[in-house]
Amino acid sequence: MKKYLVEFIGTFFLVFTIGMVVIDPGAGALAPLAIGSALMIMVYAGGHVSGGHYNPAVTLAVWLRGRCPVADVPGYIGAQIAAGIVAAMTVLALKNNPTLTPNEIKAVPALIAEFLGTFALAYVVLNVATAKGTAGNSNYGLAIGFTVMTMAFALGGISGGAFNPAVAVGLTVMHLANTSNLWIYLVANFAAGALAAVTFKFVNPDDK
Amino acid sequence: MKKYLVEFIGTFFLVFTIGMVVIDPGAGALAPLAIGSALMIMVYAGGHVSGGHYNPAVTLAVWLRGRCPVADVPGYIGAQIAAGIVAAMTVLALKNNPTLTPNEIKAVPALIAEFLGTFALAYVVLNVATAKGTAGNSNYGLAIGFTVMTMAFALGGISGGAFNPAVAVGLTVMHLANTSNLWIYLVANFAAGALAAVTFKFVNPDDK
Amino acid sequence: MKKYLVEFIGTFFLVFTIGMVVIDPGAGALAPLAIGSALMIMVYAGGHVSGGHYNPAVTLAVWLRGRCPVADVPGYIGAQIAAGIVAAMTVLALKNNPTLTPNEIKAVPALIAEFLGTFALAYVVLNVATAKGTAGNSNYGLAIGFTVMTMAFALGGISGGAFNPAVAVGLTVMHLANTSNLWIYLVANFAAGALAAVTFKFVNPDDK
Amino acid sequence: MKKYLVEFIGTFFLVFTIGMVVIDPGAGALAPLAIGSALMIMVYAGGHVSGGHYNPAVTLAVWLRGRCPVADVPGYIGAQIAAGIVAAMTVLALKNNPTLTPNEIKAVPALIAEFLGTFALAYVVLNVATAKGTAGNSNYGLAIGFTVMTMAFALGGISGGAFNPAVAVGLTVMHLANTSNLWIYLVANFAAGALAAVTFKFVNPDDK
Repeated sequence: MKKYLVEFIGTFFLVFTIGMVVIDPGAGALAPLAIGSALMIMVYAGGHVSGGHYNPAVTLAVWLRGRCPVADVPGYIGAQIAAGIVAAMTVLALKNNPTLTPNEIKAVPALIAEFLGTFALAYVVLNVATAKGTAGNSNYGLAIGFTVMTMAFALGGISGGAFNPAVAVGLTVMHLANTSNLWIYLVANFAAGALAAVTFKFVNPDDK
Repeated sequence: MKKYLVEFIGTFFLVFTIGMVVIDPGAGALAPLAIGSALMIMVYAGGHVSGGHYNPAVTLAVWLRGRCPVADVPGYIGAQIAAGIVAAMTVLALKNNPTLTPNEIKAVPALIAEFLGTFALAYVVLNVATAKGTAGNSNYGLAIGFTVMTMAFALGGISGGAFNPAVAVGLTVMHLANTSNLWIYLVANFAAGALAAVTFKFVNPDDK
Repeated sequence: MKKYLVEFIGTFFLVFTIGMVVIDPGAGALAPLAIGSALMIMVYAGGHVSGGHYNPAVTLAVWLRGRCPVADVPGYIGAQIAAGIVAAMTVLALKNNPTLTPNEIKAVPALIAEFLGTFALAYVVLNVATAKGTAGNSNYGLAIGFTVMTMAFALGGISGGAFNPAVAVGLTVMHLANTSNLWIYLVANFAAGALAAVTFKFVNPDDK
Repeated sequence: MKKYLVEFIGTFFLVFTIGMVVIDPGAGALAPLAIGSALMIMVYAGGHVSGGHYNPAVTLAVWLRGRCPVADVPGYIGAQIAAGIVAAMTVLALKNNPTLTPNEIKAVPALIAEFLGTFALAYVVLNVATAKGTAGNSNYGLAIGFTVMTMAFALGGISGGAFNPAVAVGLTVMHLANTSNLWIYLVANFAAGALAAVTFKFVNPDDK
């Protein structure tokens, strides 16, 4: 139960920060720095309790890599999605229910963008937070959070830059993404998480 | 006594940086980066002496969590408030006593914003700087400072982004906040600090 | 083989990020932050497997310093160059094959700029990632990635800011650099890597 | 000799970055981030050899604190000043010898600004890089470099933001500061370094 609460709190602040800094007036060009830092601080705060996933695609990747019990997976993903929805509603209330029109995105480039960004994220998570070769480091949160920052700078204009199904749900609730595009995020994010787990095992063969 | 001096120095540079980068000409859109970094560097510099609170709401949270002797609380809070006032006066002198008009804030959104931002801050502080599960890390200052940066990006436009009663006092002295709104910061900041302590104990049940 | 895959992945995301944030619409003035962070996250993710070079000039420097087997050098450099080309083609596809005109650069200033930036990078890499005196630190990725950020801020306007032959090849494929200038990067980057190795040995005489 | 070379290299890249990002076209509002990061990376690269001062006022503070042999002081300061001059000349050459007019500064505010910024810097250096209570951390470079970034954001408009006599000399050579104001930096920086050493000893009484 405490793990699910930590996943809820972390995902809440991630999605909440995204909404607050993206919806005008927000943080402008600096939004990716705020978003990546929101993830970083929550990974540092909650990693020792829940692993600090805050992302169903990361939970999938960590489970496939063998560092998340299957019994935890539904609770983790449920807490993450619920947090994304609650955060989105909190943002809308604080921003006075703005009328927003999602940016148009094209399916194929968005699929590629979400796949690449989520692959980078899950690949970094597995290597800095679950590998024997990097055990005990103090940089895992910086590496994970700034991966989202980097990918948001690189790919935000193509796909909206979710790299996370719970974020995609939050973006949809805030009308920053179209409901009809939700499948793009789900397909690309989970596929990338799975490939990252396979890649991790290949490059860390002695790390069971 | 040395602890109080460290709390004074750290809070002084935090509030001093806020005033210098917020009052025009300051750091513009980058102000939250400077402010969060001011907290980060002082946490790294003074944490081994005083714990590096620099914030009465954090002192409350750390005391409730059991890592600050009750006898230290008045001295800590006194040093922090005094530093906020001295820093504000130093800023006004260096800026040639500018005539400033506080931004209007609305009480309910500001209460929510200050509550959420301070909860995030105290939750991060307790988990990265007082938990057994993260003992010995080198990231505590980065996590704590960048929480203030992130929350300032997200919420600065709603409440002014104090998340700290000593900062709120400093903002009031600098005429960046209205005296009539000081209660908002005090109520929201201390309530959030208390809830963060309760939350910490729930998610770290074996960490006395 | 796993080392080469890690070098490919890391260099891919470095060059991919460069293209995405430099070609309009990109990250504007914040591009160096995104680029430096791309290198940082990949160094943290892959350092324990391959050393996290992602740069033929760094591979040269690490080999000269005695921390990369000569048998690995061709595979490393091949993987890095291949990744630079694939990343550049991916960027062009995602950006809809833009018609780009490289900025004019002057050979002598560009040689100096690439030499200085690459020397700083290789000097930092050798000292933070291969020296006995800094073994076990958690800051190697931050130091290495932010060296590229710093040098890109300082020198990007002079030479384009590659500091890396694989990046130079990627820039050329994306028409962000002229093919006729490729020799500038190759000469300056490798010469700087070699001098950094000599400098490292002089300032760390007991570190074989 | 190797210590002096490391001090030369680190100070060179610090002053070189300052000139390149401050003189138009530079890094604009992001200049403090580049400058602070330049110091950070050189502290991480050279700290294990020379301590990574790159600043005569820091060398004074570290000597007073008892962590720099008196015999090293002249060599350190000489290397730092020489590096400041060489870096400034390199910047002028790469920028095509621009005609620059220093910003006007007022003596009293500039003295206060340089004193406060240098005190923060030397206080952070002594606590994160020489204190027993923080031994073995990986954050010393981040804390030190970002202190300069923070103080440059806060105080750059008042004094130019040197906080370092070697930087002040470099600024003077580049015509970014008036020769007639050099005494301001020397007086304020060395006085602040000395006070930081006294403060350090008071708050770390058991740390000889």
